[in-house]
Amino acid sequence: MNATQHGYADDQKKIIARLNRIEGQVRGIRQMTENGEYCIDILTQISAVNSALKSVALLLVDDHLNHCVKEAIEEGGEVSEAKIAEASAAIARLVKS
Amino acid sequence: MNATQHGYADDQKKIIARLNRIEGQVRGIRQMTENGEYCIDILTQISAVNSALKSVALLLVDDHLNHCVKEAIEEGGEVSEAKIAEASAAIARLVKS
Amino acid sequence: MNATQHGYADDQKKIIARLNRIEGQVRGIRQMTENGEYCIDILTQISAVNSALKSVALLLVDDHLNHCVKEAIEEGGEVSEAKIAEASAAIARLVKS
Amino acid sequence: MNATQHGYADDQKKIIARLNRIEGQVRGIRQMTENGEYCIDILTQISAVNSALKSVALLLVDDHLNHCVKEAIEEGGEVSEAKIAEASAAIARLVKS
Repeated sequence: MNATQHGYADDQKKIIARLNRIEGQVRGIRQMTENGEYCIDILTQISAVNSALKSVALLLVDDHLNHCVKEAIEEGGEVSEAKIAEASAAIARLVKS
Repeated sequence: MNATQHGYADDQKKIIARLNRIEGQVRGIRQMTENGEYCIDILTQISAVNSALKSVALLLVDDHLNHCVKEAIEEGGEVSEAKIAEASAAIARLVKS
Repeated sequence: MNATQHGYADDQKKIIARLNRIEGQVRGIRQMTENGEYCIDILTQISAVNSALKSVALLLVDDHLNHCVKEAIEEGGEVSEAKIAEASAAIARLVKS
Repeated sequence: MNATQHGYADDQKKIIARLNRIEGQVRGIRQMTENGEYCIDILTQISAVNSALKSVALLLVDDHLNHCVKEAIEEGGEVSEAKIAEASAAIARLVKS
């Protein structure tokens, strides 16, 4: 793990814990489907996972702006423009997903 | 598994296969986070999982309308109204998730 | 206006009133942009309009299921399958929009 | 209009033109509703407006990061942290809208 590579160092444990829970939720949804459980109950769980994933994504966006983008701008030059363009593109993919 | 309980019988294998793949994707995202991989790469994967989950949800909505809601309406009476209200609420949760 | 053509007869006034308000909100956002108001304030208004539009759309989906789809299923035959496929496609466009 | 107040100066005309078009689309949707047009056709138009509004919002986010946030970080200090927190909150509202 390289401290210069990622901006979520302070939230890393929290994010891993949340992704663990989400992985368990998806496994639970698969089991509900295998058991032939009711469509609506499965849909409700999928909506919950979507919201949980978006929360993780928004935490990562915030960390990314606060560290990676901030440091790139402080260093200045072309790197900062590329960093902002990259962040904007990731935010666009998230908004459209 | 009860044939009258769910409407996705014809798509069950396909849905289970997709959820398996999504579970693997979430596990991969967790591992990326543990390895301290780059925020933007993790965000890209989360957006992909969101889209994949929405596709599964939309398949379930279609199956639900084609079977559970259709059968309830064919039977008629109050059950059909409750079934439609339940479907609308699930669609609303999905749209807002 | 043809009673057999649309399913939102009971909500028509409410929907028109909401769309009037949304039109005014969009006009307000344009004026904010012309006045050079702060990006974040404009973004906040756009998010509010998105939520308001989704609420109108979900009301229309509910009305459509309760009337157009219900009547098509009660009549039976191929029409009902086409109606459900059409509703599913509209819900998918909404979820992905 | 104050040059220090907003970050979308370069895109202002484009954004105004897009919002004008969106306002016209919303007016068209209201008229469709007044004419009792078919639910699905109205839903399709609402989804199109949602996508168009999101595109405007993403352009504003990009401009905001490239100007307001960038300048705040270059100035340094507490202002930059507040600016990033504000941007993150606006992005979260957009993702959840």
